[in-house]
Formats: sequence, C-alpha cells, structure tokens
Amino acid sequence: MPSPDADSSTPDRRPAVDSPVLDPAVAARLKRDAAGLVAAVVQQHDTGEVLMLGWMDDEALRRTLTQGRVTYWSRSRGEYWRKGDTSGHAQYVRSVALDCDGDALLVRVDQVGAACHTGDRTCFDADDLGAVVGDPSATGGPSDADR
Amino acid sequence: MPSPDADSSTPDRRPAVDSPVLDPAVAARLKRDAAGLVAAVVQQHDTGEVLMLGWMDDEALRRTLTQGRVTYWSRSRGEYWRKGDTSGHAQYVRSVALDCDGDALLVRVDQVGAACHTGDRTCFDADDLGAVVGDPSATGGPSDADR
Repeated sequence: MPSPDADSSTPDRRPAVDSPVLDPAVAARLKRDAAGLVAAVVQQHDTGEVLMLGWMDDEALRRTLTQGRVTYWSRSRGEYWRKGDTSGHAQYVRSVALDCDGDALLVRVDQVGAACHTGDRTCFDADDLGAVVGDPSATGGPSDADR
Repeated sequence: MPSPDADSSTPDRRPAVDSPVLDPAVAARLKRDAAGLVAAVVQQHDTGEVLMLGWMDDEALRRTLTQGRVTYWSRSRGEYWRKGDTSGHAQYVRSVALDCDGDALLVRVDQVGAACHTGDRTCFDADDLGAVVGDPSATGGPSDADR
C-alpha cells in the first residue's frame, strides 16, 4: 500500500478534505495506460451533453475528487491543467464514477460556458462523420463472421 | 494517400456502402495513440446516458461508420468485436463525431439491453467514487497556483 507523504511541515493551503494522495482503495482499481493515465469522459449533469474527453493520472483524479473542480493531465503540455483557470470555463464536479474495468471515468459536471477550446459548447460539435444509421429491425448484417 | 485494396476477386458479401478502407479524409484527422487507437465514448441517443468507453482502430471505425452497428478493437483480446454479436446487446449507430483534436469519438447509439458485460445498463453504474461536489458560487479554491 502506498505510504502517504505525511510531512506536516510542508506548506499546504489545501483544506483537510484534500488529502495528499489518492485513496489507495481507488488507486488499486485503476487500470492505467502505458503513460499512467485513464480516460475521463465529461458530461453536463443536467442536459446529458458529452462535453469532452480528458486524461487523468492519479494526482489529477485526486484533485478532481477532492476540490470540486476538474483537473486533467495535459498530454500535449505535460502538466496539470485545472479546467477554467485560464479560460474561465470551469467544470464544477457533480459526481465521478469508475467504469467496470477501471480504465475510464465518467465525470458529471456543471460546465461554465464552452467546454471546447474552439468556443464550441462541446468538443464533438464540429465534425460529424456521416455514419450510416443502423436499423434495429434488420437482422444479422454484413459481418456475421465477426463475433 | 492509402491505396485501397481493390481486388474484386475477393469474396465480399458487404454492401457497396461498406468501402474497403476508412475514408482517407477521416483517417487523416485521427490522432491515434501508440497502439493505433482512438477512444470511443458511447452514448444512448435519446436518454443521454453514457454507456461505455471503447477503442477503435481505423478498421473498427470504418465498420462502425458503414455498417450501422458499432465495432471495437478489443485491447484485451486483440481482435475486432462487434457489440451484441455474442451478447445480443447490439448498438445501432445514430451518429459518430470526431472531437476537436482527433483523439476521441462520440458514438450515439440505440443500445439493446445492457451495455455493460456485468449486466448493468452502463459501465459506470457500479463504482461511484464519492467526489466532493463543486460549488459554482465559490471563487478561486485551493489550487489557484495551478493554471
């Protein structure tokens, strides 16, 4: 079990709820990728809009679970990134759930303004790929050989 | 630009719409991980439920865009996996969108039955992490030093 860094002499303006390490019981259930990250699906709590997909390591998840605001690990910048600190478009946490195999999180939030850096409400607004719509009344299909 | 395999002598029961390679214009916009995959967030089209997170390579996305059913790449089994062919819990495609930086898809579906292999409706039903709820009326917070 990880040993929390309990050096009480470290200056720390965080409230008591903001424990210094991710709950080991949660950390033990995470199935991280090679970079130590899990995917975080972010959803507007009331409308159900899927706003974006971000990435979290243990520390980003710890901050998200304890601070009421969503923090990611930026793969492109290599740093923690608390959504809204630069843009004002904060994400206030409503709930966080881990999926059945531990490699994805569902973060339900109250999103201030646009979730996407382009100014769109969601990161999925701009690029519909024109998929063929499926027909539940049809049976089988062209790939019955797939399992 | 990729050269489609146009060997017309290959037995192929797929309809014409089911082209043999992913549209190069779409393929060029994908930002794949080291394993050649992008994340696929799957959402029930009418209720807004986030059902699961899966993974797609170019071929899984091609099948999903053209067949009306969702196909994933199974990282654990190392094979294509068309949801529902084994369980009956098919996902019929309504739309597929790519996100702003090309590394995530939002797949809106009509889900038959449970999306999760555990029998739960979604893969996020069972493990709420007890996050602290954020307060939009509060300002700043404990990590103003984060950006």
